[in-house]
Amino acid sequence: MSILIKNAKLLLTPTKTIEKGNLYIEDKKIVDFKKHSADTVIDASDHVVMPGLINAHTHIPMVFLRGLAEDLPLKQWLEKEVWPREKKVNGKIVYHAALLGMAEALASGTTSIVDMYFFQKELATAAKESGIRAWLGYGSMDGVPSSELDTEIKNERAAIRAVMDTGSERVMPIISPHSPYTCSKELLIHSGEASKELNLPLQIHVSETKDEVKQLRKVVGKPPLKYLDTLGLIGPRTIIAHGVWLTPGEVMLTSKRGATLAHCPVSNFKLGSGIAPIHKYIEKGMNVALGTDGPASNNSLNMFEEMKVAALGQKLSVPDFASRKVIDMATVNGARPLDGQLGELKPGNKADIIIMNLNGPNMAPVVNKTQIINNLVYGARGSNLSHVIVNGEVVAKDGRALRIDVEKSSRLLLKEMDKRGVL
Amino acid sequence: MSILIKNAKLLLTPTKTIEKGNLYIEDKKIVDFKKHSADTVIDASDHVVMPGLINAHTHIPMVFLRGLAEDLPLKQWLEKEVWPREKKVNGKIVYHAALLGMAEALASGTTSIVDMYFFQKELATAAKESGIRAWLGYGSMDGVPSSELDTEIKNERAAIRAVMDTGSERVMPIISPHSPYTCSKELLIHSGEASKELNLPLQIHVSETKDEVKQLRKVVGKPPLKYLDTLGLIGPRTIIAHGVWLTPGEVMLTSKRGATLAHCPVSNFKLGSGIAPIHKYIEKGMNVALGTDGPASNNSLNMFEEMKVAALGQKLSVPDFASRKVIDMATVNGARPLDGQLGELKPGNKADIIIMNLNGPNMAPVVNKTQIINNLVYGARGSNLSHVIVNGEVVAKDGRALRIDVEKSSRLLLKEMDKRGVL
Repeated sequence: MSILIKNAKLLLTPTKTIEKGNLYIEDKKIVDFKKHSADTVIDASDHVVMPGLINAHTHIPMVFLRGLAEDLPLKQWLEKEVWPREKKVNGKIVYHAALLGMAEALASGTTSIVDMYFFQKELATAAKESGIRAWLGYGSMDGVPSSELDTEIKNERAAIRAVMDTGSERVMPIISPHSPYTCSKELLIHSGEASKELNLPLQIHVSETKDEVKQLRKVVGKPPLKYLDTLGLIGPRTIIAHGVWLTPGEVMLTSKRGATLAHCPVSNFKLGSGIAPIHKYIEKGMNVALGTDGPASNNSLNMFEEMKVAALGQKLSVPDFASRKVIDMATVNGARPLDGQLGELKPGNKADIIIMNLNGPNMAPVVNKTQIINNLVYGARGSNLSHVIVNGEVVAKDGRALRIDVEKSSRLLLKEMDKRGVL
Repeated sequence: MSILIKNAKLLLTPTKTIEKGNLYIEDKKIVDFKKHSADTVIDASDHVVMPGLINAHTHIPMVFLRGLAEDLPLKQWLEKEVWPREKKVNGKIVYHAALLGMAEALASGTTSIVDMYFFQKELATAAKESGIRAWLGYGSMDGVPSSELDTEIKNERAAIRAVMDTGSERVMPIISPHSPYTCSKELLIHSGEASKELNLPLQIHVSETKDEVKQLRKVVGKPPLKYLDTLGLIGPRTIIAHGVWLTPGEVMLTSKRGATLAHCPVSNFKLGSGIAPIHKYIEKGMNVALGTDGPASNNSLNMFEEMKVAALGQKLSVPDFASRKVIDMATVNGARPLDGQLGELKPGNKADIIIMNLNGPNMAPVVNKTQIINNLVYGARGSNLSHVIVNGEVVAKDGRALRIDVEKSSRLLLKEMDKRGVL
């Protein structure tokens, strides 16, 4: 199958553009910027074509919890509202909630997600069916000190197998120990080794809240990221989720190791965790990506909104923070730990591409390249998207994920939640 | 003309709901919640019907500056980018830019705007044509000390006449001295008197930045709001825009006077002005409304986004801040200084109403009333709107403002900007 996108403004990266050009896709990849005959021709006059957005940290099935419990601090929220409900969750709930989340993500321009949750078989099935590109991780946790190390290692292995079993090149596993405060030293060491042995990326929650950092320091005598580094977890394929409270030393270390931070500003605001000073992190050479976190603490899976809030959060203290940087965060920086063939429009890269209509009143007037980039950060909405292409296939069009039946999944999700007493 | 909205979830106010009911509109007003035959019947099953959103502070024609200059601190941004361009602006630019802004506002659920700008004739024409409800103010400023008091008083009177001359009941003037640091004492006193004599609301920028407060205190020996109060400007029909840096005494005074604060969180973040502690203001009894500020410093005119950012900004320090409160801010609180017949769905009130589809994946699953309200704050988008009704007329449908030709206004705006050297 081939697609020709013609007459488009091409945003290859935030600093490399083609004013009016073509983009040719064949066999799931970007071939070149020439004109070709193709199975599908998309006339993209008055449109911007850019890399699909990469949501570098989420818990997508938490759609089932969206809006159900609000206005609580993190600890109470987890202990009173989230965990009791999560105990009753089954694969069916995860499957339908994930499909709804993927529909929202795709419709608003996200082509890749990095997820951490449970029920990998159902999650992988949802990802395969939806058309999204997904790294799915089993959030392993065995307690500190360990109470179920072997079980968790077994669970993790089964989860990896379940993901691989889909046989989809778009659906991949990621090693995902939950955090240094919920995983034993042994499980953490095992996770780092597994990542290297299996050549898989690794994600872990680090320094989300001030309290959690304080508590952990008491137990292990080091700040969280340094601790994880001594256990071998911090490298170029590592995604650190949150990192709101990294010490200057940890910032340097993260940069030196080439690890990626997944900044999740909406969730960090909403749970009162704080604003990660990513302008400083970027200055120190850190690769900063962007994530929505789970829809229970956001409550959206919308990377355009996340870009805006990310920029706003920095501008509060650094008004000249360059907006363009958040486009890097949402594209190429997210790709780095995952897949070298994503995040930029260039020949040979995988065809994960979004096409935005510039004719909406929220994007008007269209004056020049710099202004379009600013408007992509501050003004664009998912509703401006005309096409979302993943792996060379149009999977969303005009704000609708084509492969997902939203009405059906909503209905079946509610039915199952009711049955299991999750409502 | 009559409209019956049937089978809807009615959110009369954030705390008063009807699970499944009807809403009947006749002669531009809400009549009752019974079934009637009507000229237009809207089946709103799986929809929420709520009061239209009130944008309590904006400069809507600044659409022409949107995205053109970014990443600068306030002073440089104004002096280098905004003011030189604004000098070249004419009525045509304002007219088309305003139409684009009104299209965006209407399509995303805003039924009323409070504006401060220049070229009231063209602005009023745009408002009349677009179908939006608008309070339009001439941003008067004569310098401190005054250099052109008489001219500004004349300009203001002419602007009021221009607005009244449209003859539209939806389009009204508002007295709008720019700020205590750009207006002389005489102009401020005159403005307060004019507001009372003409029975018009009054809006003014107050305490947006820390520096501005410091500077003014040096000149007048008082904090800004206290100063304005001694000049007679602070009363129940006053809208204070921003108020990021009010002193505790000023907060008490604002509450006592029954004045309204228009909180503009996105703009305050983006220009690095700070986060107004509105949770404290509300606690002290202040009527807090919500505004987007101008699209040059936002860059959107989207009140759903503004609600979310408003909630996030408070949650950063007060995680249990009740999300519901921002719906009050965006509806009934905004109505208070303007028009007692707006902001709530009740018999006799003006029919400014929005209808939201709950079937989008970003709103799923729909569980209960509280959860819907949470999702309206954190998950809803303009794209969920099916109908926007102002003064009993459907003026936007499925994300499109029906009376505005966006393509035409974009084209003519660009042409005129080019001609005047504004690009």
